[in-house]
Amino acid sequence: MRQSRSFIPTMREVPSDAEIKSHQLLLRAGFIRQNTSGIYSYLPLGKKVLQKIEIIIREEMDAIEAVEVFMPAMQQAELWQATGRWYNYGPELFRLKDRHNREFALGATHEEVITSLVRDEVKSYKKLPLTMYQIQTKFRDEQRPRFGLLRGREFIMKDAYSFHATEESLEEKYQDMMRAYMNIFTRIGLNFRAVIADGGSIGGTGTHEFMALSDIGEDTIAYSDSSSYAANIEMAEVNVAYEKLSEPLKKMEKIETPNQKTIDDVASFLEVDASRIVKTLIFKADDKLIVVLARGDHEINDIKLKNALGATVVEFAHEADVLELLSCRVGSIGPVKLPVDLKVIADHAIASIVNGVCGANEDGFHITNVNPERDFAVDRYEDLRFVQEGDTSPDGKGTIKFAKGIEVGHIFKLLTTYSTAMDATFLDENGKAKPFIMGCYGIGVSRILATVAEQFNDENGLKWPKKLAPYDVHLIAINTKDESQNALAEELYNILKSYRYDVLYDDRPERAGVKFADSDLIGLPVRITVGKKASEGIVEVKFRQTGESTEWQKEELTEKLQAFFGME
Amino acid sequence: MRQSRSFIPTMREVPSDAEIKSHQLLLRAGFIRQNTSGIYSYLPLGKKVLQKIEIIIREEMDAIEAVEVFMPAMQQAELWQATGRWYNYGPELFRLKDRHNREFALGATHEEVITSLVRDEVKSYKKLPLTMYQIQTKFRDEQRPRFGLLRGREFIMKDAYSFHATEESLEEKYQDMMRAYMNIFTRIGLNFRAVIADGGSIGGTGTHEFMALSDIGEDTIAYSDSSSYAANIEMAEVNVAYEKLSEPLKKMEKIETPNQKTIDDVASFLEVDASRIVKTLIFKADDKLIVVLARGDHEINDIKLKNALGATVVEFAHEADVLELLSCRVGSIGPVKLPVDLKVIADHAIASIVNGVCGANEDGFHITNVNPERDFAVDRYEDLRFVQEGDTSPDGKGTIKFAKGIEVGHIFKLLTTYSTAMDATFLDENGKAKPFIMGCYGIGVSRILATVAEQFNDENGLKWPKKLAPYDVHLIAINTKDESQNALAEELYNILKSYRYDVLYDDRPERAGVKFADSDLIGLPVRITVGKKASEGIVEVKFRQTGESTEWQKEELTEKLQAFFGME
Repeated sequence: MRQSRSFIPTMREVPSDAEIKSHQLLLRAGFIRQNTSGIYSYLPLGKKVLQKIEIIIREEMDAIEAVEVFMPAMQQAELWQATGRWYNYGPELFRLKDRHNREFALGATHEEVITSLVRDEVKSYKKLPLTMYQIQTKFRDEQRPRFGLLRGREFIMKDAYSFHATEESLEEKYQDMMRAYMNIFTRIGLNFRAVIADGGSIGGTGTHEFMALSDIGEDTIAYSDSSSYAANIEMAEVNVAYEKLSEPLKKMEKIETPNQKTIDDVASFLEVDASRIVKTLIFKADDKLIVVLARGDHEINDIKLKNALGATVVEFAHEADVLELLSCRVGSIGPVKLPVDLKVIADHAIASIVNGVCGANEDGFHITNVNPERDFAVDRYEDLRFVQEGDTSPDGKGTIKFAKGIEVGHIFKLLTTYSTAMDATFLDENGKAKPFIMGCYGIGVSRILATVAEQFNDENGLKWPKKLAPYDVHLIAINTKDESQNALAEELYNILKSYRYDVLYDDRPERAGVKFADSDLIGLPVRITVGKKASEGIVEVKFRQTGESTEWQKEELTEKLQAFFGME
Repeated sequence: MRQSRSFIPTMREVPSDAEIKSHQLLLRAGFIRQNTSGIYSYLPLGKKVLQKIEIIIREEMDAIEAVEVFMPAMQQAELWQATGRWYNYGPELFRLKDRHNREFALGATHEEVITSLVRDEVKSYKKLPLTMYQIQTKFRDEQRPRFGLLRGREFIMKDAYSFHATEESLEEKYQDMMRAYMNIFTRIGLNFRAVIADGGSIGGTGTHEFMALSDIGEDTIAYSDSSSYAANIEMAEVNVAYEKLSEPLKKMEKIETPNQKTIDDVASFLEVDASRIVKTLIFKADDKLIVVLARGDHEINDIKLKNALGATVVEFAHEADVLELLSCRVGSIGPVKLPVDLKVIADHAIASIVNGVCGANEDGFHITNVNPERDFAVDRYEDLRFVQEGDTSPDGKGTIKFAKGIEVGHIFKLLTTYSTAMDATFLDENGKAKPFIMGCYGIGVSRILATVAEQFNDENGLKWPKKLAPYDVHLIAINTKDESQNALAEELYNILKSYRYDVLYDDRPERAGVKFADSDLIGLPVRITVGKKASEGIVEVKFRQTGESTEWQKEELTEKLQAFFGME
């Protein structure tokens, strides 16, 4: 493509309303423009990257026999009413009426549409499993659109849905998808992790998120430094073998600790390590009070607590309830001599505490040399705490580290949530009607564009990985008025195109400095500059990723390029 | 693709709500499903055809240096207010509000968005011309959605926009687009005509429609039987050399014609040919009355009349105005002895009438042997009538015939309509601000899917042209329980895939009759059936277009297929 005929409006200044690198650079390099809050136009360079992402996704979906469809954006309200989401999706769902006053949702996702489609056409287990996907614009009225394409109101997604007769079949497809997603993100070139995740509001069980590692990510991932283990911090198991100190058990002692309220206060006042303190909390789990113990240096993960108790809602007990129960404030609770009908659940780490410290159930006092079993009873030990950096990885391999991540993909087992709500059933081998067992699988296509830009850049601009670059080669003639430069540039342009390279040819009558700055900003993998040595058939070649530059004879160009881009 | 893993829900019955062949067949063959009135899902086969259409469009757009972009569906109301279309587009424009109560249009078209984009980024004539296109979902709330994909409320379009510094540059791009469109529709395999068209409400001048010929088309095309001339009947010029009869002029006679009101009445009552009658009409052109003459066998085309008079609105005069002016009814008007201040405009054919008949400006009477010039004056002769079948083609080559057409493409010169309204200017060579000169160019992508289905079918189903077929080959094993049939089918499936054919492999455990019926319905170009002669390595090959069938040895399969599909 001749740059003079394309639409690549670059900017020197950093746009004031763009907070993060990818947003700034995609604007500055002319990949996107904002139309209004959270709504963007993809300019030619942005559109080309999207297409490269889509090709990779299609190839990997096809490989696992998912078939492509295209469903409408306008979805009649009745569908969303059937699953109840019309009422509880909230203001994120764009709604509108047609000329006959019929209500519609603008597709935020397509579970309802595809479930109704399959319900109406698939009657027998013989037609299962069935996996369909689409690449399509989605609409969500985010309260606070931000970070450019990372959180927009109109964005492009690949969403896939699978329908099964059995959970085994779903599990098989889920593993297919897992592999396909790993391939997709690997081919794209992202630095990412597949992360064990919580189902969130969509109501699935057994889900993985695919997280691109990035400091600006909104999620924290706990991962192993020496295996593929990774989990959303909220879901990461703790699997640590705590060593019990071998010191002799000492006698309990009640000690005055005036105004020492926090764990840190108490630790420094008593000159003990926080890991010796028995943090004692009272939770209300579905209206029942329960005592929860964790080491002073650990944090309770209430999702784990909720799951361990099989409770629907878990929250801190009210101060007033605690006062009534124990006649002391929250900061002074301890597990010693609690009312007998009060159940105690403790994190595994508590079992290894020797001569610990806890609250005395009396304001202003703590007890030292407390030992579990001897001094207080625990009804159950469970994994209740958040994982920490430095913990052993739950798979036993390596040590846990934390990273921030941007969610670029998500796979869910929906099971029968939607099929039951929409009365979508098939006849099984015995002629019995059963709800379809479903999975759903998303990839944020436009979000990937921004995420890659976020991971691959330097102070001069973007640095596209080869597979995703809008063009392979940036061809530049330094002086378009110089006949031999022009002739060589035109010749190379035609040769490279004939070798099927995607070439952006900067034929603009601009100064060399402008062309180089734009070229760095745009960030194609290879820049070929035709300059003063044109008459000798020599060009300068610069690699954007490494910054290396060298000179090539025009005769060796295609062979060397082929070596650089690989043989695929 | 294994058919058992795809989603191709075929139907034997004709859906009662589908009026036309293409709609019935696309539903029956499992290409599409309706979600709600005018809104469809594209199932795997439909989506594949869309993709093949899109690839052809992209290749031809790229070839004329149009660059692809992707603009949003949600368009802030302010843009549409700037051009006034927010107020006059009517209920066809879907409108909605976001959570902050800001108003949006759902993109029915993108002139506003792209004009604002270019206005904000392109400041100089040096960046022009610039041509951008996108392939995208459009939303229009049609009053009466019908004919399946032909008139829907959510549909897929390719829309392109060009920006120029001069009209010459626009003309050049318009001709590029004309060629690209001819290539696109030719490659797709449509039976179509490029047709001179009226600009319609979008406000352009100099426009062509691309009409696929079809009896169910809503437009009538006048075309030459021996040249490429074609025009929308509303725009077709008449360029006929009328021969004047050489009979001697007779004396005018006033004759009683009681109750003879229409041209046909008078012609048969007086036993003259309708072509001898001077049809006399009174129009109101922008509040001024004018007499319009045409031959009795011709129809006045009011668009031509409007253009000839340079009027904004042209309509029939009210009965009461005629009565007041001439003291007779509309059916009795004639050009003889009219009030002197009344202007008379006549179609060219009038000049050749000899001894004609006209109304006497007195109810119940006509005048015979009327001759122009001798008996009545004509201020201007113009081309005012509709073209007729049998007329000489305006380009002088051949004879006019009529056909019905489905509009599949449309190219417009918008000139400065949008740029002026949106204050979108560039600086010309002299540093003077000028509004961009624009063109816009549309193709109905999803409409093409239906139009091809309408043109290519028989009583058994669809008959896809090679370039658009969702798959190249339908491979069928008659008896999937027969080991040698199964083995050969699997072998051929893999061989054909390795030769890069798109193969639909019917591996379903269905009866042969069901498979053949489905195969005819789906309509792929080649069907390869593995049956009883599998053990001899012989398959049956049937061509959907011609119905011919033959037997091939498996060894000769790829070579013969290559010959059938051509070498491209």
